[in-house]
Amino acid sequence: MNEFQLIDRYFKSIHLSDPSIILGIGDDAACVRVPPGHDLLISTDTLIADVHFSADWDPFDIAWKAVMVNLSDMAAMAALPRWMTLALTLPTLDSSWLERFSQGLQAALAQHKVHLIGGDTTRGTLSMTLTIHGICLTNQAITRSGAAVGDGIWVSGDLGGAAQALDWYRSNKQDFPLLKNKLHFPRPRLDLRTILQEFASAAIDISDGLAADIQHICESSQVGAILWEDHIPIHSLVCPSHPEKALAFALNGGDDYELCFTVANHHEYNLQNRLAEQGLSCYKIGEIEAQSGLRLRSTQGKVDNLPVKGYLHF
Amino acid sequence: MNEFQLIDRYFKSIHLSDPSIILGIGDDAACVRVPPGHDLLISTDTLIADVHFSADWDPFDIAWKAVMVNLSDMAAMAALPRWMTLALTLPTLDSSWLERFSQGLQAALAQHKVHLIGGDTTRGTLSMTLTIHGICLTNQAITRSGAAVGDGIWVSGDLGGAAQALDWYRSNKQDFPLLKNKLHFPRPRLDLRTILQEFASAAIDISDGLAADIQHICESSQVGAILWEDHIPIHSLVCPSHPEKALAFALNGGDDYELCFTVANHHEYNLQNRLAEQGLSCYKIGEIEAQSGLRLRSTQGKVDNLPVKGYLHF
Repeated sequence: MNEFQLIDRYFKSIHLSDPSIILGIGDDAACVRVPPGHDLLISTDTLIADVHFSADWDPFDIAWKAVMVNLSDMAAMAALPRWMTLALTLPTLDSSWLERFSQGLQAALAQHKVHLIGGDTTRGTLSMTLTIHGICLTNQAITRSGAAVGDGIWVSGDLGGAAQALDWYRSNKQDFPLLKNKLHFPRPRLDLRTILQEFASAAIDISDGLAADIQHICESSQVGAILWEDHIPIHSLVCPSHPEKALAFALNGGDDYELCFTVANHHEYNLQNRLAEQGLSCYKIGEIEAQSGLRLRSTQGKVDNLPVKGYLHF
Repeated sequence: MNEFQLIDRYFKSIHLSDPSIILGIGDDAACVRVPPGHDLLISTDTLIADVHFSADWDPFDIAWKAVMVNLSDMAAMAALPRWMTLALTLPTLDSSWLERFSQGLQAALAQHKVHLIGGDTTRGTLSMTLTIHGICLTNQAITRSGAAVGDGIWVSGDLGGAAQALDWYRSNKQDFPLLKNKLHFPRPRLDLRTILQEFASAAIDISDGLAADIQHICESSQVGAILWEDHIPIHSLVCPSHPEKALAFALNGGDDYELCFTVANHHEYNLQNRLAEQGLSCYKIGEIEAQSGLRLRSTQGKVDNLPVKGYLHF
């Protein structure tokens, strides 16, 4: 089976009919139509074996995670994801691996009504680059740069679970299954799209770690922030007997893929009502300040500078 | 220098001001605006060290080739390239390598007024995935599937040069510089955009080899083709003393990045006038036929099936 037959067999079928797609897989380029009055959002992520996932994972899980990580960037912009390309690099042509991978890909894309419209297959170290294309109403994308002094800082869910899962995976395989889902099946918070559009002044997905990602918002918005230790929602399975380690996982562990966003105080009442209506829980964990840098107010009320230790590839 | 500083230093500056770009590098996603009445074309290519380029190339040349290969897909659709993302995987953070690479990237993008709007940097085996986004008037993209029986088959320039360069690179370093440009500096045929829009029924870029790429057109269009040996334009430096080897390089060598396109006979007179007006040379090398498969009519007039030996990654 050569690469053209491979594409036909495993990827061409992942193409649900959709009138926005003029031309899908199988030409020099795909052709799609952005609806009038909308902007196009584009984000790309590379996932490399034994960095972003383990080569011994079920290929279904690898595809699933790759898609969800990429979709999380659309969630952070309050965009609707529409079309994806996949550049897949494989050490060998392994049919059973590919079949399982394409099942995971198909399931993940179908869950969010995203269409695979193109890609490339090459031979090399196992890795993949996904590029997601989404849409939002003109000028309605939520960026990192809109946070203003006095805005509340919110997160969309429990933190530290992915870091705890990784820690267990490396040291304590017995407990790992309890949190495997956090690491293998991140859930992009696309369910917050309309709420972000209505209320958020800035947003980011927590992929590098809460502190590092708040710092990105602060730098883009030219502000600083204070976080309140006792308001940070830590996943209940994260080191219950070591509160300091648990806090470090929540602040600096990457891979949680929750959203962090800022909301002006005058929106807070309506935000909470809307969250309740939709059955969603978000947590206010601090405030944007004029003074640059990040600070943490401890449970005892002491304020200290917060060193940022996000994930770095180099 | 961490990856965020790296992006700032080498890539953020590659962002010419352009009103179509609402948000460039530095957020969870880029945001661009497709003009009304236009479709969006998307194509992605992965280039891997020691497969698509040699790791010991000048990093300027690596970036240049990666961009041009990716732009060639836009040329084949008769689209105007606009915005690119770059997912770059590097074994180490080498400032002098990156500086040279970003110079090549900047020069290549500037030549075609394309803007780098986003990307990802990761650590691993040297490789890169580029995704180009282009535009064309609604329903005006030229696909592979429009070739009709009786259409002439055209190519946009001399063939076999890249295959000869690779052959020399491997066996005869002395002559290699004569054709180095063919391998390191492919020229995407974006200059043919308006001509293709006016006359072409189908088009493809010759990256896998002429025969393989004509076969792609034939399969998509559900037709066959005959090529005329004595009409195939072979680069003058390609094996002048071994006509059979020269023909094989022209038919099966990849990496030439010329275009192959089909044109209805009633357009031929106007096509030739337009080419002459614009100072461009294209060559008619055969005809679309109803019978499936590829055939070659030799200089002696004998017609044989043409086996296809395009480049395969696996």
